[in-house]
Amino acid sequence: MLQIRQQRFLDNLSRQSQFGRLPKSEGGGIDRRAFSTEERAVRQYFCQQAEKASLGIAIDAAANLSARYPSADPDARTLLLGSHLDSVPNGGSYDGALGVWAALEVLSTLAESKIDLPVHLEAVAFTDEEGRLGDLFGSRALTGGHTTETIEAFLKQAAEFPDDFEAMRRTVPGALTPEAIRTARRSPQSLAGFLELHIEQGPQLEKAGCQIGVVDSIFGRRSLQVQFFGRSDHAGTTPLHLRADALVAAAHFITMAPEILQQQFPNCVLTCGNVLVRHGAYNVVPAETAVWVEFRASSEDVLQQIEKALDRLAGNITAAPDLSFAIHPKDQLTPAAMDDSVQGQIRQVAQELGYPAMTLSSGALHDAKLMASITPTGMIFVPSKEGRSHSPAEDTESEDLVAGANVLLHTVLRLCSRSKA
Amino acid sequence: MLQIRQQRFLDNLSRQSQFGRLPKSEGGGIDRRAFSTEERAVRQYFCQQAEKASLGIAIDAAANLSARYPSADPDARTLLLGSHLDSVPNGGSYDGALGVWAALEVLSTLAESKIDLPVHLEAVAFTDEEGRLGDLFGSRALTGGHTTETIEAFLKQAAEFPDDFEAMRRTVPGALTPEAIRTARRSPQSLAGFLELHIEQGPQLEKAGCQIGVVDSIFGRRSLQVQFFGRSDHAGTTPLHLRADALVAAAHFITMAPEILQQQFPNCVLTCGNVLVRHGAYNVVPAETAVWVEFRASSEDVLQQIEKALDRLAGNITAAPDLSFAIHPKDQLTPAAMDDSVQGQIRQVAQELGYPAMTLSSGALHDAKLMASITPTGMIFVPSKEGRSHSPAEDTESEDLVAGANVLLHTVLRLCSRSKA
Repeated sequence: MLQIRQQRFLDNLSRQSQFGRLPKSEGGGIDRRAFSTEERAVRQYFCQQAEKASLGIAIDAAANLSARYPSADPDARTLLLGSHLDSVPNGGSYDGALGVWAALEVLSTLAESKIDLPVHLEAVAFTDEEGRLGDLFGSRALTGGHTTETIEAFLKQAAEFPDDFEAMRRTVPGALTPEAIRTARRSPQSLAGFLELHIEQGPQLEKAGCQIGVVDSIFGRRSLQVQFFGRSDHAGTTPLHLRADALVAAAHFITMAPEILQQQFPNCVLTCGNVLVRHGAYNVVPAETAVWVEFRASSEDVLQQIEKALDRLAGNITAAPDLSFAIHPKDQLTPAAMDDSVQGQIRQVAQELGYPAMTLSSGALHDAKLMASITPTGMIFVPSKEGRSHSPAEDTESEDLVAGANVLLHTVLRLCSRSKA
Repeated sequence: MLQIRQQRFLDNLSRQSQFGRLPKSEGGGIDRRAFSTEERAVRQYFCQQAEKASLGIAIDAAANLSARYPSADPDARTLLLGSHLDSVPNGGSYDGALGVWAALEVLSTLAESKIDLPVHLEAVAFTDEEGRLGDLFGSRALTGGHTTETIEAFLKQAAEFPDDFEAMRRTVPGALTPEAIRTARRSPQSLAGFLELHIEQGPQLEKAGCQIGVVDSIFGRRSLQVQFFGRSDHAGTTPLHLRADALVAAAHFITMAPEILQQQFPNCVLTCGNVLVRHGAYNVVPAETAVWVEFRASSEDVLQQIEKALDRLAGNITAAPDLSFAIHPKDQLTPAAMDDSVQGQIRQVAQELGYPAMTLSSGALHDAKLMASITPTGMIFVPSKEGRSHSPAEDTESEDLVAGANVLLHTVLRLCSRSKA
């Protein structure tokens, strides 16, 4: 049975993880933010490795970088594989990068084997997934999701890093202007699907002893600011039972919201990530406190139920004299279901290759979330040690990395044989 | 029976409350911070009213301003009455001011009645009680409590408001230098005691239907920063039961600490006044959260017991994997007991005058706290409507203001008759 070239793959993964590597004194992680010198360098390394494997190179007007293994049929549709090469400021070796290098390895293996496919195959590194200038920028461009506002916001951010931005523009002449960005859109008819291999960034596979995760959906997300209002009083002179303390109300919310979630929405997550006390001081009873909360679930319906439950909770907490609350919605992202049929193929491949697998949802956002809006999309997860991610502690066993790449390879072959049939 | 001149007293209180009065659009309270144009103006008005009552004026090297009604005996000790004329930025009409104007009224009444006293009587307005440049600055100088550090800190703050500071210096030639400030100290032997009439700034008298409060102690105060440490995790990918959330731990502390206080230390107060989440964001499980907490009690022993209870509480909350805490003491102020004998005199005067009275502690800090360290000191409270203070809503009924001034007058007479005996 065909397998990826394990040594080449692991070597590439290891070498790529030196681009942007910080000294121990600065955290020891990877700083390879989109458009940085380090990210441009790893893109260069990607091109060299693609050329070594006799693959073609392409870069679109949103700076999405691809290696290509074309079908003999010039009218074939394109099956995309990939993820991103940019990182968060002190990130890990595999978030994004694994999916790109595994995609390149799959194309290299197939090219070496001279297997003719009924689809063009493309290993893509999407631009700025982590959102240094605009989150999911590259996949948003490819899926035609940009608006005048998202492009303006992107260019405004770009103006904060003019050297990096201009350096990237020089490598892709004519790209990254408002007009050009819109031309990066691909028509759904031209695509056969999208597959993304990624580390889980959570602990579920490790806890369950599974090497492969079949993603059924990417969670939707809502974020709110919940403001609590009370009465400012002198901290020395106001007995506790006569206070209307906005911070104590907020604290009840912060302790009880996760409890409600665990009881009523056990597969979802909720985080209170920040608290702001207005005029915070030792000696004043807080009159106003804002809690930043976000929650994620696999359907709009559940997101709405959670929002209602939080509204009820805040209402119950403030059902006392001089206390009140207000909820301000901030951001919202719809959930994305992965293609059922693609899920089934991944599951069967894992079984045939003998890798224990389980189905799970992705709490994190990925390029696959946007790709799912225009083409049948699947995601494959491999375990993250202790669930750590966006951190230098991010790690995955070599055998799991290889398992993920082989599952990707054989899912491509299965989708192609179906495509032929 | 001798009484203060009610109309003059209330007129003065009303007129003085126009100095620094903000327009409604800016809060409608009083902004009469120490050294400001407005505070200098109200001091001027105080001097005019003192001169009208044929009282002497004195100002010391810390800018403490006094009206004097001397005893016929030049070797007599001095009984001080007073409080402060400065306010917080958007404060009320009576905090501090009531004690100064009542003191002036008592001296005026006695001077008019040509009553000879065995003590020099002095109505003092202490400098900068509210701490624009240095809290309790004037009473600290008078009681010899300044150190090189407190004076340096004061002058450093003064440099932020050079115009105000120089204007005050011009009104008190030679004052407010490091050397001069130390000369404002009075010897305990020269003093017969200190009495301060003040609004309660809390709701206890109003709730109990009492016009007079006899203060038994001024609470001591400790402030701490309690830091909670957890583990930073991806808010989308980490199941709730696997998190070590520093903010949730902090929130448990914020809800439970006041409960412990109410159960175990019912006469004390505790406030969590601020929370700081390190790298607060919607999508990151907080790894570090600091809570600012302060608590007040009438004895060192109880303060220590509360601190121990908080330490135990934080320990119990963080008794889970990857959670921990650290407590950093910030500030501490010892409690001050009011003189037992003076308390007894105030209580008897209230009874004789027919004012319902109760004993209570002061949760707020006052000049009397420092004065108690060098001379027998008593404090008289009158009710604050709804306990409001440091706010434009600060208010007290006229009859309570008058009651307070009359109790002050007769406490002086009682102390003098004791002093004679």
